[in-house]
Amino acid sequence: MWSDNRVTHLYLLLLACFTFDLHANSVSVERSTYIIHTDISSMPKTFTNLQQWHSSIIDSLKPTNTPSSDGHHSSPALAYSYENAAHGFSAILSQQELETLKKFPGFVSAYSDKNVTLDTTHTPEFLSLNVVSGLWPASNYGEDVIVGVIDSGVWPESDSYKDYGMKAIPARWKGICESGQEFDSSLCNLKLIGARYFNKGSVAANPGVNISMNSARDTQGHGTHTSSTVAGNYVSDVSFFGYAKGTARGLAPRARLAMYKVIFDEGRYTSDVLAGMDQAIADGVDVISISMGFDGVPLYEDPIAVASFAAMEKGVVVSSSAGNAGPHLGTLHNGIPWVLTVAAGTIDRSFAGTVTLGKGQTIVGWTMFPASAFIENVPLVYNKTYSACNSSKLLSEAPHNAIIVCEETGFLKHQLNLICASNFLGAIFVSKYTPLFELGGVSCPGVVISPEDAPAVLNYAKIGNRSFASIKFQQTVLGTKPAPAVAFYTSRGPSQSYPGILKPDVMAPGSLVLAAWFPHNPTAKIGSNVLLSSDYNMISGTSMACPHASGVAALLKGAHPEWSAAAIRSAMMTTANPLDNTLNPIRDNGLNFTIASPLAMGAGQVDPNRALDPGLIYDATPQDYVDLLCAMNFTKNQILAITRSNSYSCSSPSADLNYPSFIALYNNKTASYVQTYNRTVTNVGEGAATYQFTVTAPKGSTVVVSPEKLVFEKKYEKQSYTLTIKYTKDDEENVSFGALVWIEESGKFTVRSPIAVSPFLTAV
Amino acid sequence: MWSDNRVTHLYLLLLACFTFDLHANSVSVERSTYIIHTDISSMPKTFTNLQQWHSSIIDSLKPTNTPSSDGHHSSPALAYSYENAAHGFSAILSQQELETLKKFPGFVSAYSDKNVTLDTTHTPEFLSLNVVSGLWPASNYGEDVIVGVIDSGVWPESDSYKDYGMKAIPARWKGICESGQEFDSSLCNLKLIGARYFNKGSVAANPGVNISMNSARDTQGHGTHTSSTVAGNYVSDVSFFGYAKGTARGLAPRARLAMYKVIFDEGRYTSDVLAGMDQAIADGVDVISISMGFDGVPLYEDPIAVASFAAMEKGVVVSSSAGNAGPHLGTLHNGIPWVLTVAAGTIDRSFAGTVTLGKGQTIVGWTMFPASAFIENVPLVYNKTYSACNSSKLLSEAPHNAIIVCEETGFLKHQLNLICASNFLGAIFVSKYTPLFELGGVSCPGVVISPEDAPAVLNYAKIGNRSFASIKFQQTVLGTKPAPAVAFYTSRGPSQSYPGILKPDVMAPGSLVLAAWFPHNPTAKIGSNVLLSSDYNMISGTSMACPHASGVAALLKGAHPEWSAAAIRSAMMTTANPLDNTLNPIRDNGLNFTIASPLAMGAGQVDPNRALDPGLIYDATPQDYVDLLCAMNFTKNQILAITRSNSYSCSSPSADLNYPSFIALYNNKTASYVQTYNRTVTNVGEGAATYQFTVTAPKGSTVVVSPEKLVFEKKYEKQSYTLTIKYTKDDEENVSFGALVWIEESGKFTVRSPIAVSPFLTAV
Repeated sequence: MWSDNRVTHLYLLLLACFTFDLHANSVSVERSTYIIHTDISSMPKTFTNLQQWHSSIIDSLKPTNTPSSDGHHSSPALAYSYENAAHGFSAILSQQELETLKKFPGFVSAYSDKNVTLDTTHTPEFLSLNVVSGLWPASNYGEDVIVGVIDSGVWPESDSYKDYGMKAIPARWKGICESGQEFDSSLCNLKLIGARYFNKGSVAANPGVNISMNSARDTQGHGTHTSSTVAGNYVSDVSFFGYAKGTARGLAPRARLAMYKVIFDEGRYTSDVLAGMDQAIADGVDVISISMGFDGVPLYEDPIAVASFAAMEKGVVVSSSAGNAGPHLGTLHNGIPWVLTVAAGTIDRSFAGTVTLGKGQTIVGWTMFPASAFIENVPLVYNKTYSACNSSKLLSEAPHNAIIVCEETGFLKHQLNLICASNFLGAIFVSKYTPLFELGGVSCPGVVISPEDAPAVLNYAKIGNRSFASIKFQQTVLGTKPAPAVAFYTSRGPSQSYPGILKPDVMAPGSLVLAAWFPHNPTAKIGSNVLLSSDYNMISGTSMACPHASGVAALLKGAHPEWSAAAIRSAMMTTANPLDNTLNPIRDNGLNFTIASPLAMGAGQVDPNRALDPGLIYDATPQDYVDLLCAMNFTKNQILAITRSNSYSCSSPSADLNYPSFIALYNNKTASYVQTYNRTVTNVGEGAATYQFTVTAPKGSTVVVSPEKLVFEKKYEKQSYTLTIKYTKDDEENVSFGALVWIEESGKFTVRSPIAVSPFLTAV
Repeated sequence: MWSDNRVTHLYLLLLACFTFDLHANSVSVERSTYIIHTDISSMPKTFTNLQQWHSSIIDSLKPTNTPSSDGHHSSPALAYSYENAAHGFSAILSQQELETLKKFPGFVSAYSDKNVTLDTTHTPEFLSLNVVSGLWPASNYGEDVIVGVIDSGVWPESDSYKDYGMKAIPARWKGICESGQEFDSSLCNLKLIGARYFNKGSVAANPGVNISMNSARDTQGHGTHTSSTVAGNYVSDVSFFGYAKGTARGLAPRARLAMYKVIFDEGRYTSDVLAGMDQAIADGVDVISISMGFDGVPLYEDPIAVASFAAMEKGVVVSSSAGNAGPHLGTLHNGIPWVLTVAAGTIDRSFAGTVTLGKGQTIVGWTMFPASAFIENVPLVYNKTYSACNSSKLLSEAPHNAIIVCEETGFLKHQLNLICASNFLGAIFVSKYTPLFELGGVSCPGVVISPEDAPAVLNYAKIGNRSFASIKFQQTVLGTKPAPAVAFYTSRGPSQSYPGILKPDVMAPGSLVLAAWFPHNPTAKIGSNVLLSSDYNMISGTSMACPHASGVAALLKGAHPEWSAAAIRSAMMTTANPLDNTLNPIRDNGLNFTIASPLAMGAGQVDPNRALDPGLIYDATPQDYVDLLCAMNFTKNQILAITRSNSYSCSSPSADLNYPSFIALYNNKTASYVQTYNRTVTNVGEGAATYQFTVTAPKGSTVVVSPEKLVFEKKYEKQSYTLTIKYTKDDEENVSFGALVWIEESGKFTVRSPIAVSPFLTAV
């Protein structure tokens, strides 16, 4: 339960998704948990509600004589009934009971419970949110919007959940603050308006398990971080051990938070996630933020896909994380056509230590050493023998009451470990690979400088006995360039579950995000034995990007309560910025700093103020998504598991969803392809407008758009166009990309859609 | 210039007085600096000011042909002319030139330049200052009072010197903000109204020396700490690495500060101190706070004694530190009859780490480990072999991923060093000697618990493999009892320079005082190589106690601008509290927690609100002090060096100064003594009042007071009484003590004077 690796574990939270079992969980008895979708129209009229019906189904499976239990499941049992996010239930069943159940009238589909994968504050400024104009004042900072966060719970004592300045809770709210272990219902307030927890799936998968925190209280930090990122209140003078100092607040600082805890130390299961989303929809949230995903499941067995369909029907925006399995293509989860899928980017901020040589030249290096280490006028030592910093023995011969200079060897992590095991007063590492620090901390007083800055340090150090240097830690540099860049870890499209829609949709800040934490876990380390904890933590992942986008969606919902989930997503996508702060195309840290493709970042970095007023939107109705589902080669029951209703028609199957982006897939079958897309845009600008397009064709492709102009007479008028792309296979499976931009004549609106040509990567 | 001992040095700043050379400095050439007192009445009328005269004296000493210099002093030179604090000058002279000078008309005395010894915020609350009533509102927080601090300079960028909320500078102020190295005159403001520096003495003593910070900028921290303690502005959210968190502010938060820097890295000399005080008096300060002293000098060669006489004449209160050479008797400096001499006490605050055993019992231990070390549910190990914690070898065999329990051995410091050199996650030390922590920090995550709490920890640890514990650091416990106690280090009377007046006068908080610091010095340490700096520091010493008393004196000056320096001191003494917060007599940490004598704490802990309205005061005029000097067996010129004027009469020598305390000295000559004291008190209450006394005789003595009642008809009326003590010698040279208390009939006022019977310790 306890090892020196705890801090490393935290820093590497974002990589945690690699380590979880992605396959069905089997418990040590013959029963395990299944999710069963039912057709509500088959419910006998003798039942007045779904749960009665579901209970009766389970009861009918039970043997007449039930022996007493040793903690294992000795008879079939109902876990949850789902009424909102899905129609169905989860139950602990044997294989034989499941087979029996499949014969019941109203059975739609069943699949086994699975593990969910967790993805892991200057950001409002970085996104240009401000109190003078734009989305913050237009949305009243999200005051009337309720965000449900599906995660690991909250640490309710965090200052980020205080309700200073909050007004009365919107009357439509139907949620509750559920009491539980170390969680009194009085912990909710005008900011944290709801808190519930769902762990029947975890318990079922681990019979006899003791849930160590049987309440909505967070014991991991993840849920506290994500929820405070969406909608945390203002908290002044916050930092991560002196770095990123400032006022923390969520993207929608006046929005309301409701936490649905589905992640427990003992498990993270489909059935619980579905239960949490089911409840969130019933409670009346406007936005669901879900920083986790299921890898390797089809849409109809993905609880996020299933539940978010119901959410979408009610106008609830579901914002989800793309995953941290990048930079390889085809690694993305939550690539669900009716949700917002968010990639992670870097922030224009770095954490620095300033090196001063003698009393003169200063050089800014990277560091996150978590203390105000005092290194002033200390001897600076350099020596060909030990400055490779790759041998403990050689290093032991270097003078320790000094700053040691370590040369670039390409093995920075190894050098860091050796130096931190020594007792130098300080260290200066040379490395071109700064993104390493997206991953975490430095436990000894060292900084990393770039190869460009290295000669000055090396030449001065070589003077010998008279070289003295100082290092100042805990410095935060804003406005670093280029930013944003695509984070190397962010999962890349095409979507595992449906490659025919370009995913991810947008990128949001995800690297080294400061947000609330819980104080019972180490967040940094000094030397080999001093672990440190903190109330705010700086971590990285698409889990951190998702709540940024969720916050923007909440603000848009506040500004445009009448917009559908598709409209909000469209506004965020068509106004996203494909350029970084040097006004060059955003680059990809995972692909050697080449120009990022839409499969890495979607349409680009989310731009909240522009999303407020997008000019045109690409809308979609529930039936539009059903038409897509009907084109997916699913069975009727697979579709019904998602749609929950036979009233939808499958008469017009179409893979050509009215989406604000374009993806053209190639495989090995032929060398060249033609694909045509039909799109309809709605004028949400004030009054008449005329748009003309410009198109940048992906390399090796030609693109034709028709008509050349879209003329709108009035607001809410719709106009359609077609886009046809002729493209070829790339033998090296490269992605090529371009964009279509509709430009309003006066230049007031530009409505941009990325176009990607990608290899087809088989979905599971 | 750089060693691992820097932090230790800082924590032990208060002990620094042991290490400085207390004797005259001799430079490597034949000339050195002397202080020369002159009789201003002998100045020839051809000179229009003192400096002209002094220059001409030095010029007359010069040889006609001055060879060029190699940085040494090749001819006599004037350093400073003193006009206010003293009449005289300092000059760099050879022994022969000095002899010549002694024959000049107007020569009074001469002595060589000496090194000064430096002595080293919930305290306003601890002293019951509050915004509702008492001295703070009555004095308008010291707004119209100017405090001159003679010290090592200021770090002007400190938030404590910001002038938020300050009004215009009093018109009488004549001081300046002197520009210098890294110190622009624009750094002064409505709070820091003056800044000057004086280092001619340091330069003279170290010919050719380069003054590394030739300005009023502090490079030691001491002056920044003391001056912000007197009158720092309000600064919120200050702490020392998480301890003592709160709002820092001086005792007189609205008073003005003027810094006179006389302490340089290159020296600390009589001549510079005298120059600083000289200037402070000329500039118009109301209070001088001087946290330093000269050991082993007679009053007439002590620049603080000399300058403070002139200050006293002008109604300026001089508040000084008793020194940190305790706990032995006779170690006190600044025992000057006309200054306030301040002892140091502890504060009702401790810095804690809470140990939690398993999930149950919590035990509060001492610590100042400077980080939020995270130790939760870690194995707790105890073993007879290694838990003596006195052998690196044995300790290396203990499990390191654990909290180790170290038994009481009486060698806590040694145990601490060994444990900090190991890599245990945490340590619990058992020790009854908590005052060790008055001295400083803990560089590894450990706490010290009391022997009373030890059995619980040891018994739980002995359970073995199933013992887990947690430690939470950075905790501040207020209201600890008993407090105050006399700090073990505070110097004790009788006064080195004149034992016939009971010194110190009062005690003020001095142990672990949080105040402003400068960020270019380590203030704490983690492990063996991580030094930390901070903007606020927590240090101990009478240097920290003195500015507390200075602040109270400033507030009293603000509330009673008409009061003399003696009246202000009297008010502070007769209202001081001899009891601690358990309502028992204050104890002495330096004398095995026995009841503290007045030779350790004077009248007791200063009580600002009571001092505002003392009922009676013991006043003294300049002539009263001259009468005392005349009884001191000094030569006429020795007296003149102090008084600077022949207009004082020596016709009524008297050792019976009208002082608010009594000391009776014994030596080996006889076995029993009788001493009678005459005192006159002034009624400063409103209107008529009648006082009766109670007396507690020192052990082995009898005390008679006459008359039994003091009846005042009106305000400012004076009444006299005599006190006669019959006492005997104590063969073991113990101090016995009691008190005389005049109690106003209604009980509104109690006017208390301590009585001490002490061995006579020969003054130098």
